[in-house]
Amino acid sequence: MWVMIDEGDVLAARDRVTETARHTPLDYSYTFSDLTGAAVHLKLETFQRTGSFKIRGATNRIATLSEAEQEAGVVTASAGNHAQGVALAATRIGVDSTIVMPEDAPVAKVKATRSYGGRVVLHGADYDEAAERAHEIEREEGRTYVHAFDDPMVMAGQGTIGLELLEDLPEVDTVVVPIGGGGLISGIATALKAADPEIRVVGVQAEGASSVAPSLEKGRIVEREGVETIADGIATRRVGDLTFEVIQERVDEVVTVSDDETAEALTLLLERGKTLVEGAGAVPLAALLEGKFDYDEGEVVVPCLCGGNIDLNLLTTVIMRGLVQTGRYLRFRTVLKDRPGELERLVEVISEHRANIYAIEHGRTSRDVAMNDAEVEIDLETRGPDHVDALLDALREAGYEVEVLV
Amino acid sequence: MWVMIDEGDVLAARDRVTETARHTPLDYSYTFSDLTGAAVHLKLETFQRTGSFKIRGATNRIATLSEAEQEAGVVTASAGNHAQGVALAATRIGVDSTIVMPEDAPVAKVKATRSYGGRVVLHGADYDEAAERAHEIEREEGRTYVHAFDDPMVMAGQGTIGLELLEDLPEVDTVVVPIGGGGLISGIATALKAADPEIRVVGVQAEGASSVAPSLEKGRIVEREGVETIADGIATRRVGDLTFEVIQERVDEVVTVSDDETAEALTLLLERGKTLVEGAGAVPLAALLEGKFDYDEGEVVVPCLCGGNIDLNLLTTVIMRGLVQTGRYLRFRTVLKDRPGELERLVEVISEHRANIYAIEHGRTSRDVAMNDAEVEIDLETRGPDHVDALLDALREAGYEVEVLV
Repeated sequence: MWVMIDEGDVLAARDRVTETARHTPLDYSYTFSDLTGAAVHLKLETFQRTGSFKIRGATNRIATLSEAEQEAGVVTASAGNHAQGVALAATRIGVDSTIVMPEDAPVAKVKATRSYGGRVVLHGADYDEAAERAHEIEREEGRTYVHAFDDPMVMAGQGTIGLELLEDLPEVDTVVVPIGGGGLISGIATALKAADPEIRVVGVQAEGASSVAPSLEKGRIVEREGVETIADGIATRRVGDLTFEVIQERVDEVVTVSDDETAEALTLLLERGKTLVEGAGAVPLAALLEGKFDYDEGEVVVPCLCGGNIDLNLLTTVIMRGLVQTGRYLRFRTVLKDRPGELERLVEVISEHRANIYAIEHGRTSRDVAMNDAEVEIDLETRGPDHVDALLDALREAGYEVEVLV
Repeated sequence: MWVMIDEGDVLAARDRVTETARHTPLDYSYTFSDLTGAAVHLKLETFQRTGSFKIRGATNRIATLSEAEQEAGVVTASAGNHAQGVALAATRIGVDSTIVMPEDAPVAKVKATRSYGGRVVLHGADYDEAAERAHEIEREEGRTYVHAFDDPMVMAGQGTIGLELLEDLPEVDTVVVPIGGGGLISGIATALKAADPEIRVVGVQAEGASSVAPSLEKGRIVEREGVETIADGIATRRVGDLTFEVIQERVDEVVTVSDDETAEALTLLLERGKTLVEGAGAVPLAALLEGKFDYDEGEVVVPCLCGGNIDLNLLTTVIMRGLVQTGRYLRFRTVLKDRPGELERLVEVISEHRANIYAIEHGRTSRDVAMNDAEVEIDLETRGPDHVDALLDALREAGYEVEVLV
């Protein structure tokens, strides 16, 4: 029987966590305050060592192991931030760590985990297979398995973010936190509610990995069949047993956002905030921007940008999606009669609508096109959804069959 | 005859600038300290309002106009950060501003400039034509033209960054600053050298827009025929007359970096630092990473990340270039006999070398390929230059003619 973590656990975690993790900046945002009417301060946990909050919980867990346990070393499985957090936390404390990662884990994350001193074992096709291997190593080598979220010491470590918020911004009204396994929000809610029960804690999940809202409704943990979201850091089928209890007691509401909303928030943060977040780091801001919870004019709201470890190839895809989503990028395909002047005529329609052309691909190679016709694909910079609509209307009026590609 | 700006001008600018601009964060970087051996602190001017330092100089310039001049309003020409800086500075002081931007200026920048209260006039095919129109408006409407750099009050305003560095990091040894027109480095060098002549100021230009090093050598301003660089914020043909005098007296050395080096630094800042900079913002870090100037182990070095306003489409291109540059992305083309099993055979070679496949494009449509052959283009994630070389060798040994595309 576990006793739910309390403020004391988080306060005790602080000294240990400070040894390795940073007190990350809290930054007032003119841009997002203007856009929402709230007083928005961004918790830049993206600037945390290893690029995410996971280092906090891992440090607290490993620092509180017995001497014998520390001597035997730790093991965990992760494809992402937890791998790096455990590796650096263990190295800093002087404990040996083995991290099992799926065989197709992104090169950058494997490299980073190794650079923090973790021994990386590549095993299995997915997280479940890697975790199985990690538990074998746990038994074979007598190592302690460091769970990514469902552990009181891990939760307490993540809660140190709540202490930093109370210190830097005592007037905070609402804190918005992503939920995957629930470790981060459990810790933060514990710290905040103990200091002031009036501070609101809002949890955010990705639509394609939402399990907490239905779980709260039913009063028991609901497990999803599968998950599908660009926010891979919170792509979990269910929350933890322990974290669910804390969420039930200390979180005020839980909302969801779509991948498109997440991509748009991520793109805005990059373009206007000059800050790179991963999908999971963008969901709190997405929930705020989309009005997924109520707030008053001038309310002091803190979205926790919990991490910034996003694969750069995925990033370019997400940026594109964010631009399309906001009507600032359009790619379409059409067919031209293959005779002189036809392309010029098409370009003229586009120019009249002042859309900037990024690229034109022009060819006769497609098998779907009649012998004398030419297919053309055009990439454009546009000024918003209305501009896109007006341009498409004009093209169709000019007789073009237009197929929008993104 | 002008009197060179001094510390007093910068100190006087501080109170005015504080009204509108932010004291931006200075952030110690574990990543870049590890990579270089120096103690690297990043000046995050990317978090400045309007996304760049230009707001500082514009504010000081407009605030020191006479009442009659303020009444008549200001005008300037810019395709970039200066446009936004003047617009917001003027609006905050209560002065009317007209900003002439070239007709093909990026939509995002036009929109941002308008959102800060500037009246935007789109005119001309390039900056020179826009500037011509701005000077016409200056004469026609009696407005004051706000120069982007060659103005003592503008320089003094930019110099407030130097004061912030002295306040936040008195032990600073070396400050690294981009040079376009020279306003930023003139102000910063003035502030730093007055406080401590031992603080070193290093200027950085893009190779394709380098004019200061040859100018210093000849003792007179050298003007380039043309410029070619991804760092559009410092793509100038020459420095200013006034800024050149300050640079001659107060800047210790001036180095250059290539576009590839800039792209690599920009990508690293994004991936490891979670910070978006524009090309001009990346050049100081590029110079440090590439060892373009000498420094001692543990030397306290501050690269000024002067701005973060980069077009997101350009960004995706730069990221790709950065990944290719560091051997982490490979796209190649080869030809397969068009019979069953050929693609599998190729994929096997790639898998043996543990390169992750992002995309395969496979077709028979190219005119360069014999009727029975199929051309295939493959995008891969690789682990570094050695990995790329080993993979290409293996493919060639297996009998493939490989053409590297990026």
